[in-house]
Amino acid sequence: MTEASFDHFLTVAHQCADAARQAVLPHFRMGLETLSKSDDSPVTLADRQAEDVMRTLIKKHYPHHSMWGEEGGQEGTMDAEWLWVIDPIDGTRSFVTGRPSFCTLISLFHYGRPVLGLIDQPVTEERWTGIKGQPSRYHSPRLAGKIGTRKHTALRDAELSCTSPDILRPEKKAGFHALQKATRRTSWGGDAYAFGLLSLGQIDIIAEDTMKPWDWAALVPVIEGAGGTITDWKGQPLHLESDGTVLACGNPTLLPHIIETLS
Amino acid sequence: MTEASFDHFLTVAHQCADAARQAVLPHFRMGLETLSKSDDSPVTLADRQAEDVMRTLIKKHYPHHSMWGEEGGQEGTMDAEWLWVIDPIDGTRSFVTGRPSFCTLISLFHYGRPVLGLIDQPVTEERWTGIKGQPSRYHSPRLAGKIGTRKHTALRDAELSCTSPDILRPEKKAGFHALQKATRRTSWGGDAYAFGLLSLGQIDIIAEDTMKPWDWAALVPVIEGAGGTITDWKGQPLHLESDGTVLACGNPTLLPHIIETLS
Repeated sequence: MTEASFDHFLTVAHQCADAARQAVLPHFRMGLETLSKSDDSPVTLADRQAEDVMRTLIKKHYPHHSMWGEEGGQEGTMDAEWLWVIDPIDGTRSFVTGRPSFCTLISLFHYGRPVLGLIDQPVTEERWTGIKGQPSRYHSPRLAGKIGTRKHTALRDAELSCTSPDILRPEKKAGFHALQKATRRTSWGGDAYAFGLLSLGQIDIIAEDTMKPWDWAALVPVIEGAGGTITDWKGQPLHLESDGTVLACGNPTLLPHIIETLS
Repeated sequence: MTEASFDHFLTVAHQCADAARQAVLPHFRMGLETLSKSDDSPVTLADRQAEDVMRTLIKKHYPHHSMWGEEGGQEGTMDAEWLWVIDPIDGTRSFVTGRPSFCTLISLFHYGRPVLGLIDQPVTEERWTGIKGQPSRYHSPRLAGKIGTRKHTALRDAELSCTSPDILRPEKKAGFHALQKATRRTSWGGDAYAFGLLSLGQIDIIAEDTMKPWDWAALVPVIEGAGGTITDWKGQPLHLESDGTVLACGNPTLLPHIIETLS
């Protein structure tokens, strides 16, 4: 696991994201009205085609690595030294409603811990990358943004975000509402894109529930390399058997208070 | 109220939106950390500066028209023949969290009814315009999209959208939850941008609450000129004394059923 090998992992991740963009964009904002019942929906086609091109690229470069994709399932063992976890379209709701905030997520685990993450928004052409132990990077041809979480926000001034109230399990709602009351304002929607915004210092806290490994894996190196923390709602590191809760925080000194509020 | 005068109204509306973009963009994704307590926040500056340039332009062209802006308040009488209603930044939550889905809204009322509307997203450079009795238009240099609501969706297949559960008054929540159960899926966030997406056939139903005239005025001509309906939750036309509920629907044949579900 040398720096040189990480450079190559990152190059392949960029190639995957470039290929996924080409596969996804033709299906974005395509109407559903002309589809017959047996046809696949645009999001299904985009999902499948983007995952196929990414799997092909990863296999070509790393035939002995394991792989886990939302669409195509698992290949190889999940406790392998190297495991790629990919989600061609994170934010199905956003994609099907034409919002340019869905993302392609690419991550690489080393013995069960995510060490490389890439978040890509194909329409705005924004891309975030993170490698364990290194500062994260933000690439955008048009939009402003600088890596670095907001470090000095008090809890009462914090901008809270969550994808949807509908993803919170009943037993998690009271904790979330307590956190809403303790913070300044809540914005909804965003999926992985909101975590990219947290890494740019635009959002202070994100609390999500019922997330799968492919939903959070790519976010971990990006958030940590921007100065934030990302754990479950108890403050424990995320791993393949995590309970589905995810908590990202731009100002790590707030974390104990947030965990207490959520419980 | 000839066609020629509408052409000129529309030209001025485009000039206003162009000027607002220039005023707003420098403040988007600006950090808050360096501000002292007495400084204005980026969203306050963007709001005020964009409203100022729009008011100046409208006054120059139509010194005898009335005006109502979210920031600068009312000028002239609200029951005048011509009334411009503008909102420099619709979607404060989106703006302050760096999401490219806030909008600038410009509308013109004729004796209390909105007859011209413009929705502009400065970052993605998407713009929608509507004039009463004419087909709406969508302008975008990069994103795909075609004016026309989705006309044949059944209620159980419908994509429902709402900006935030927090904008629903307690007495409106039960109706909204019933509508959620009757539809396929709910996506959150979006403000005026979601109404633009409904006019492109990407969203089927939007139900909002506690909306002010500057929040909905520009949407009316755009939605109606795309084949949809936009009313309050009882199906009544929107006017300056409406109760704050707003209901947009891409398939007008669903409207009676939706109204019944919401009540």
